[in-house]
Amino acid sequence: MATHHHFAVQFPKVLVLRKPSGFAMFGEQFFTSNKFQYLKAYESALPLHEFLTLHAHSVKAIFSSAGAPVTAEILRLLPEVRLVVATSAGLNHIDVVECRRRGVALANAGNVFSEDVADYALGLLIDVLRKLSAADRFVRQGLWPINAEFPLGSKLGGKRVGIVGLGSIGSEVAKRLEAFGCCVSYNSRNKKPSVTYPFYPDVCELAANSDVLIICCALTDQTHHLINKQVLLALGKKGVIINVGRGAIIDEKEMVGCLLRGEIGGAGLDVFENEPDVPKQLFALDNVVLSPHSAVFTPESFKDVCELAVANLEAFFSNKPLLTPFAADD
Amino acid sequence: MATHHHFAVQFPKVLVLRKPSGFAMFGEQFFTSNKFQYLKAYESALPLHEFLTLHAHSVKAIFSSAGAPVTAEILRLLPEVRLVVATSAGLNHIDVVECRRRGVALANAGNVFSEDVADYALGLLIDVLRKLSAADRFVRQGLWPINAEFPLGSKLGGKRVGIVGLGSIGSEVAKRLEAFGCCVSYNSRNKKPSVTYPFYPDVCELAANSDVLIICCALTDQTHHLINKQVLLALGKKGVIINVGRGAIIDEKEMVGCLLRGEIGGAGLDVFENEPDVPKQLFALDNVVLSPHSAVFTPESFKDVCELAVANLEAFFSNKPLLTPFAADD
Repeated sequence: MATHHHFAVQFPKVLVLRKPSGFAMFGEQFFTSNKFQYLKAYESALPLHEFLTLHAHSVKAIFSSAGAPVTAEILRLLPEVRLVVATSAGLNHIDVVECRRRGVALANAGNVFSEDVADYALGLLIDVLRKLSAADRFVRQGLWPINAEFPLGSKLGGKRVGIVGLGSIGSEVAKRLEAFGCCVSYNSRNKKPSVTYPFYPDVCELAANSDVLIICCALTDQTHHLINKQVLLALGKKGVIINVGRGAIIDEKEMVGCLLRGEIGGAGLDVFENEPDVPKQLFALDNVVLSPHSAVFTPESFKDVCELAVANLEAFFSNKPLLTPFAADD
Repeated sequence: MATHHHFAVQFPKVLVLRKPSGFAMFGEQFFTSNKFQYLKAYESALPLHEFLTLHAHSVKAIFSSAGAPVTAEILRLLPEVRLVVATSAGLNHIDVVECRRRGVALANAGNVFSEDVADYALGLLIDVLRKLSAADRFVRQGLWPINAEFPLGSKLGGKRVGIVGLGSIGSEVAKRLEAFGCCVSYNSRNKKPSVTYPFYPDVCELAANSDVLIICCALTDQTHHLINKQVLLALGKKGVIINVGRGAIIDEKEMVGCLLRGEIGGAGLDVFENEPDVPKQLFALDNVVLSPHSAVFTPESFKDVCELAVANLEAFFSNKPLLTPFAADD
């Protein structure tokens, strides 16, 4: 009897709207748990609305990956949902305001991707200063045997590097810069009491006192075009800008002008204002390095994030605190 | 009388064979000293042999830069030379054996370039793992708007990195790798008593236990083709090799074959067996990064090296120990 009863147990249901790329990458067993089971909307022939109505009272949480939107309408159809777990750091595909209004908790990727972004920022910095991508082009074009002199780069050690936004990513960047003998200072909304790097409340003053600026902050109304022409001119002719934040933190048009006129020294850009469009004038410049929003992420970190998502779901169904709760004002 | 005598003082002469690039880069005053004066062979209309014969007994030291050879014949013509100072780390343009036989001391660039080489090694590693140069090509070719999916790279953190040659450069590489969360181990002629990283006396065993090999050792009879096919196969399909040592430390032909057959995962190569010739098969591969022997040096380090050269000359003429003496078995 006990055994029979055991098989009849109904695990709480976790809705999955779109097939998570993690299912294909790591196998579905990787995501299984004895605390809940998945309800896969994407395997049903029913229209989503009907499917959700049918399961309205059994779905307790949503596993949101692959950017499948979690709208107010979906939340309305699932009144018992108390948690949305995402495998991304940003939650712009989720109606966060509606979640908050309904008392639905949110969990995200936390800081798992910060190391990847920081690694990439250092890669861009070394590349711009030491001209790595340009060197690779030079060799592949067969120019080395013709013109033995490839221009010298510039040394990392001793460079004054200003970090804009000393959060999780910025702190990882700083840690790496120290190993290269760079001198770190930073700008952020507020001075961090636990940090000993020099703090500049004004980003323009930070630029004036830096050889390199690395943009690591989030894009908000306050940081939109934070890096304007004045900041770029303060950075100066030999100054280098690295952006692993968001394109619109820099006034891109002004930056392109400064690069073309030699008013700044170089740039390493993973993000742009109108992705996937990149200003074509940059393609001709050897002192810039361009990448297609690749700083986040790697399969290794994504695996960690998927593990974290399952752990958040298990914590929730065990009445334990979430590992990486997302506060709406983050 | 004393004043007159002062002006008549003959400073000891330091021979300069070819115009040092440092003279043009930093100005000749940067190299002046009140301990000696330069005798510039390149400004004389006399044939070198005659010029040296004329000054045979006033030249006490040679300042060797820009790769101007210091041959046994030159040393024979200048019997009072007791020091050769070079602005490079390697002294293959100087007849070191003849210097030793004649009791001529040698000074080189010491470890001043080690940080530049280590920075570059990390740049190559991040580039190969995170596909930076390939990403830059992708964007410049205008492919991003057409094909939004650029392949994922691989995370640095947690990678097992084997350093071949844990001298000055290798140690700087290790310091940087730690900041990225890599696990360092090494191979060298002998275990270093002061180092806690795991030591592998056999390079093949190091490769079998590494995700990445970074070649930092000198090229000697013992290290020629040290990285042979067996070592490359031990490194394996996902393994990455970085070479900032010398081309001939790797069996290049075997390495190219392994890359073409997918028997190793990628390579970041600053040096080649027959520079400036680079195997053309590599130009088609996106998992390799190629550079024209650029790891050494930057203007910043070169300035330090020039300062060091002058300091070595001044130490010598003040009967003080050399700052960076070069031992022939280095």
